[in-house]
Amino acid sequence: MKIVAARRILQANEQIAAENRARFQAAGVFVVNILGSPGAGKTTLLEALFRRLQGHVRPAVIEGDIAGTIDAQRFEQLGLPVVQINTAGACHLDAGMVSAAVEQLELSGVDMLAIENVGNLVCTADFDLGEHARLLVLSVSEGDDKAAKYPFIFQGIQALCITKTDLLPHCNFHVERLLRDFRRLAPTAAVFQVSALTGDGIEAAASWLQAQLAQAKLDKTAQPS
Amino acid sequence: MKIVAARRILQANEQIAAENRARFQAAGVFVVNILGSPGAGKTTLLEALFRRLQGHVRPAVIEGDIAGTIDAQRFEQLGLPVVQINTAGACHLDAGMVSAAVEQLELSGVDMLAIENVGNLVCTADFDLGEHARLLVLSVSEGDDKAAKYPFIFQGIQALCITKTDLLPHCNFHVERLLRDFRRLAPTAAVFQVSALTGDGIEAAASWLQAQLAQAKLDKTAQPS
Repeated sequence: MKIVAARRILQANEQIAAENRARFQAAGVFVVNILGSPGAGKTTLLEALFRRLQGHVRPAVIEGDIAGTIDAQRFEQLGLPVVQINTAGACHLDAGMVSAAVEQLELSGVDMLAIENVGNLVCTADFDLGEHARLLVLSVSEGDDKAAKYPFIFQGIQALCITKTDLLPHCNFHVERLLRDFRRLAPTAAVFQVSALTGDGIEAAASWLQAQLAQAKLDKTAQPS
Repeated sequence: MKIVAARRILQANEQIAAENRARFQAAGVFVVNILGSPGAGKTTLLEALFRRLQGHVRPAVIEGDIAGTIDAQRFEQLGLPVVQINTAGACHLDAGMVSAAVEQLELSGVDMLAIENVGNLVCTADFDLGEHARLLVLSVSEGDDKAAKYPFIFQGIQALCITKTDLLPHCNFHVERLLRDFRRLAPTAAVFQVSALTGDGIEAAASWLQAQLAQAKLDKTAQPS
């Protein structure tokens, strides 16, 4: 009974995710699903990336939180279009929530949409939102054993941002240990080491996002109309 | 359909949790459910606490992880009885998993059982395991906005351990900001500021656990037989 219900939910989610993806494709919007633990630094990284990309892309944000609007307010202060989803306790975003949030955005003025998921290294992995890429944020203070302990979420990502590298001298975190486990799970994913505090690595991660956007635009042009 | 199934699961969980609790009570075992994000420092804190309590309590550990045995091996190295639960993707422990794990423990040799839950600041909140107390671990590197953003899990706890305080000079974390939100959610919970690295605050948290154990023993004596 429990399993059947879960399957039905996931099947329904897949269908709405496919509709979202077609809609994003038609509008020429590149969509990235931002995953990570609570406090990994997702919002701070996005702020730094969008500051760097200012004038080059037209971003918008869908912000997923259990409660409150703290992070959405931070993006509003950057002057970005932002829609807050409050999940009222739910541990992940799903494609239906994103579909409803997109109604509140003027997609014609947007070419890059970041969906900041609920802070959760488990449940968010199971729900396709219709994104083109998944970027996982892992802070060095979380420890270098996280890919081994939470393998499912690391498997399906296109990019890993190791954040808070300014804390490396104070943490028992060895990048090579993390990557040893991670490379078994996602051999071709891009990896960035960044510090939003010092700015280290932000440019490389921003360039990756820009390249993804350019690719999405090429893909749209190549589509039969 | 989804809601009905979820209710049924939670109802079944409540029943098994009550059975677990009665069993722990009868065996004179104090049980603490350890909650927190991935990488908050749950395992490292427990290691420090059990080192401090050596000779005073007879501990055991049930270790919940999605995959692997990394943390269970750490407790084995301390010479503690430990049972690993691998959830195979599930984002929280439930009372049934704990009931099965307890079968593998010799409770007559134990008076304090720590159940280290899956790293998750959302889903673990909903599942009573039959514990006597919940201790939530929050590291300063996660940010001081976490009680505001994840209120549900903070509401039901008896103790909060703010960990990695050695990182305070390097993080934008203000204890009073966290506590301002937290005190609205759990006005009477104990709060400890600890660093497993320097040992700061470990004695206070260990004393709290010992006091809880003493209380549980008193409660058992006071029970009608």
